[in-house]
Order: sequence, then C-alpha cells, then structure tokens
Amino acid sequence: MLKAEDILEGSRKAEAQKAGARMIRLIEDNDPSAFELLKQLYPHTGEAFIIGITGSPGVGKSTLIDALITEFRKLALKVAVIAVDPSSPVSGGAILGDRLRMQRHATDTGVFIRSMASRGQKGGLSRATKDAVVVLSAMGYDIIIIETVGAGQAEFDIASLAHSVGIVSIPGTGDGIQAVKAGILETGDIFIVNKCDKPDADAACHELVMMLGMRNLSETRWKPVVLKTIAQNGTGVDKLVQSFLSHLNFMKKNGLIDRKKKKLDRLYFQSLLKDLTLEKILVFMNNSTDFKEMLKKIESGSMDPLSAAELMVNNLITFE
Amino acid sequence: MLKAEDILEGSRKAEAQKAGARMIRLIEDNDPSAFELLKQLYPHTGEAFIIGITGSPGVGKSTLIDALITEFRKLALKVAVIAVDPSSPVSGGAILGDRLRMQRHATDTGVFIRSMASRGQKGGLSRATKDAVVVLSAMGYDIIIIETVGAGQAEFDIASLAHSVGIVSIPGTGDGIQAVKAGILETGDIFIVNKCDKPDADAACHELVMMLGMRNLSETRWKPVVLKTIAQNGTGVDKLVQSFLSHLNFMKKNGLIDRKKKKLDRLYFQSLLKDLTLEKILVFMNNSTDFKEMLKKIESGSMDPLSAAELMVNNLITFE
Repeated sequence: MLKAEDILEGSRKAEAQKAGARMIRLIEDNDPSAFELLKQLYPHTGEAFIIGITGSPGVGKSTLIDALITEFRKLALKVAVIAVDPSSPVSGGAILGDRLRMQRHATDTGVFIRSMASRGQKGGLSRATKDAVVVLSAMGYDIIIIETVGAGQAEFDIASLAHSVGIVSIPGTGDGIQAVKAGILETGDIFIVNKCDKPDADAACHELVMMLGMRNLSETRWKPVVLKTIAQNGTGVDKLVQSFLSHLNFMKKNGLIDRKKKKLDRLYFQSLLKDLTLEKILVFMNNSTDFKEMLKKIESGSMDPLSAAELMVNNLITFE
Repeated sequence: MLKAEDILEGSRKAEAQKAGARMIRLIEDNDPSAFELLKQLYPHTGEAFIIGITGSPGVGKSTLIDALITEFRKLALKVAVIAVDPSSPVSGGAILGDRLRMQRHATDTGVFIRSMASRGQKGGLSRATKDAVVVLSAMGYDIIIIETVGAGQAEFDIASLAHSVGIVSIPGTGDGIQAVKAGILETGDIFIVNKCDKPDADAACHELVMMLGMRNLSETRWKPVVLKTIAQNGTGVDKLVQSFLSHLNFMKKNGLIDRKKKKLDRLYFQSLLKDLTLEKILVFMNNSTDFKEMLKKIESGSMDPLSAAELMVNNLITFE
C-alpha cells in the first residue's frame, strides 16, 4: 500500500522518488485509491513554482527543458518535469519524459521526470496533470515544469495549471502569427525563440515584440519577455531561468502570485466538482434500481430518453 | 419562437425545412430552448434508417454521399445528411454539407443537408449529433446519413449513432491495415472501396475480405459486405444502396433492429444523464451560496479543494 509519508520525501530519497512515480501512475490509471492520497498530500503543497513550457512539435522543448534543469540545479533548486501529451493514449516512448530520465539527471534525486498521456481519465488530462502537480509539489520540488504540445487547446489549458508560461517557437516558421491565431499570445509570460542560430532569428523576435506590444499593459501587469536561446548548447538558458525567476518575484511583489494560486485552486475545485459528480453518476448507473427501471421505461417506449434524463437528474441533484 | 409543429413537416415543405435548419443551429449553439423542442419532437421519431459513412479525408465521402442521395431518391426515399467534423470549431465551409447543399439537390425538399461542427457542446459533438438525428427523424426523412472523418475515436463513436456503418477506403493506401489498427473493422457493416478505377482496387478488396474473414461470425450476425464504387460517375452506388437496404432487412428479420434502437436509446439516455448533470452543476456553481462559501474556505486555506469537492458532491447528489 502506497502511503503519503513515502511520497513526501521524494525530492530527497531515491526510495521516495519511486513512491512518487507509483502515485503518478495511479493517477494516470484513474485508480480510485489516488484520491485519498491526494487529500493527504495536499496540505504539504503550495511552495513550488509551476512553469508551463509549450510550443509546436519540433521547436526543441525537450532539449530546452533538459538545459533548464541543469541551470536550475546550479541554483540548488530541485526540479520536477511532467511531460504531457494530449494526443497520445500511451505514456512514455515518443515523449521526452522517459528519454530525458535516462540521461544525465538519472541519479540526481533533485530531479524527477515523468511523462503523462491520456488514458481516458474521467476529468481529462488537465485534471490528471493537476493531480500530478499536487504530488510533485508535496514531494518537495521547488520548480515544477509542465511540458505540453500546443497551448490554448480546449482539452488542455496550460494557463490553468502554471504560474508562468513559456511559449517556445523557432525562426522562420511564422509561429508568431500562429500564436496570435490560436489566441495563445495572451497566455504567454515568456516567449522563447529557440534554435536562434538559424537565419531570421532576429526577425522572429522582432515580430513577437511587435505583436506583444499590441497587448494592453499596465504597471501592475507583467511585461512579457522575448528571449533567444540555442537549447542544444545551452546559449541563453541562464537568462531564461533568470526571466522565470524575475516573473516569480514580480508576481510576489505585486501580490499576484497569491491571486494566481487562489485562481488555480478555484479551477481545480471546479474541475473536481465536475469529475466527482460524473463519477457518482457512473456509480448510480451501475447500481441504482431507479436507473434500471427508467431504462425499462425507455426501452418499452413509455418514456423518452430526454424526459427520463431530465426527471432523473432533478431527483438526483438538489440544492438550495 | 420555433415550434415543434413547424419542424415536423420538414421533409415536405420548404418553410418547415428552414425551421429544421434553425433547430439544428440551436443545438449546435447549445441553446437551452432546444431541449424542450427535442422532447416534443421525440415521439415523432424512430422510423428513419440511420446510416453512418466514415473514412479518412480524401477517400471521396462527399462525392459518394452525393451519389447515394441520387440513388435513394430514385427509390422515392427522403434523405437527410448530417456532416460532422469533430476537428473543426466552425461549421460549414470546408466540410461537404454546405457545398453539397448548393448543388443539384438544393430545390428538393426530399433532401436535407447540414454540417455540424464542434462548438464546445457540453456533451460533445456526439450528443449534438444525436440531437440533430432526432430532429431529422421527426422531420420525416426515411434515410439519415451521418458523415464523419474517422471512426472509433473517443470523441465521436459512429457506431453509437447509426444503425448501419459504411467504411470508405481507397486502393493503395493500406487503409485496411489502418482499420484493423484503429479497431474500426468491428464497427463496419459495409466496406466501400471507392475510386476503384485506380490500380490495386482488387487487391484492396481482397485484403479487406481476408481481414473480415477473421471476424467471428454466426448465422444471426450480419456478414459484412465489401463493395467497389467509383463515386465520381456513380459506378456501384446502386449496389451500395441495395447493400444498406439488405442490411436493414436482415436486421428486421432477426429482430436486431429493435435491439439496436434500444441500445442507441440507452446510450442517448446515459449521455443525456451526464450532460444534464454537468449543466446542473454549472448552474449550482453560478448561483449557490453554498458553493461561494466553499470557495472562500478554499481560498483562505481552511479546506483543500479535494475534500471540498468531495463534501459538496456528497451533499448535492443523493440516491437510494
């Protein structure tokens, strides 16, 4: 049996790391035992700085995060990475998580990397990722990086999970324009032009700065940063780390971080409310004689499915 | 105000066709008034034969359906087509529906074509499509064709909507193998190899027949048919129509059609139960003082989101 105590030490002990990995697996598998453990872990969370890294496939997110880990470790900050692939039904393999884990950070308990895929989680991958963030935060990691392809998608909204969002693009792909179209410009705090040894790097930065200039800004709002990196050899990644930390400090100074944390808690609560409701409806459909009787009425034609569902829901859910 | 009576005459009067189109728009837009109308329309449904047509982009579904309409009209059967695009947030345009509507069937009230796209419908596109099928059936169409890209997708399961499923492929693409991989072989009743003037048409058919031979069959189960068509000039489409009607007759003789209709009703009821529950939870979140007080507790840290959601759901939903 997995215990909360086993997980809490995760960022210090190799054994506890394994417990954390098991816990994330339970979440991914929709295991009912995960919920009780999450409740126990929750009071130990709240200190981690949660960074979202997003961008199209091929922009070098995986290499960039590898370099970010190295820089954060230089500052003695413990780093957990959760790589999320909304399009894949299986975890591991193609996505960076497991590939990275094999590499240079493998023996460092100050680094923890897992990938997460969609396995038909009741509340979708967004809820499962939030659950995983609770685990990583409780394990004691200072920095939690959520990596995902794309942003602003209905099924996975990185801004509802992270305190700071980095959007990665590369020169010459017109990603800036794409970002505007996809409406992700508003969700980005730091814009990273990676592979900037390529031609058009300056043009890409300029384009981003121009577009960001169109955003409404005030003094109490973070002015988004555009940065160039070459993740492959680490160029610019130290500055990127400083930018993320500057953003955190800015949010702390302006009381924005507390507001953001409250907002994320509220969103988590709302998604839990929906998920638990649906879970309860499933239990109802599997066990209730009322439900079975209603099914018979529908099959005999004495009740239509619409009226039946309406009646049933009105009987099931009552408030004020 | 849209009235049920206005819609019911849809397959006979141009004015009523417009009412049907408005109703489908209401469904697509998640308009709350649609539900009451659907309840009124439901008793007038149940006679239509619902055909699903699915296949990868580029196999010629749109042209094939155009030819199918012509053949069904020769038999004096009234045909409605609903083209569903799970990937698109906007309706019309790229998808065949509106393109077809412009064409040769435009003045025929015995033909009705609409496209439907994902607009964040609460229950997803599958529920919205089922709602639309209720409307089309109530309008008096004999044949309802649901066209969609792909099959067996989590977000859109054609087998839960149609009485008979046609899977379209073209020679030389190895679609047969893809079908096995995607697990859609089991959902197909009629396999159409379109553009069969291309080389490898016979090989493609042979491959499909071989793979279908691996399915477990009994006398009371429909033996899937493999058919060659050239939708562009109508070749084989008369046979395709006969195959669909044979499948319907087979199901009628074996009592399978009633069982299938009951199954689809049950699935509709279950999805409605989930959707209406979620809608009620949204109302709760917008209006309840209990909910607002719980939010305050979470924001002050006196309650964690997980325990709060659990408590709330247990208070909200009670059965037996």
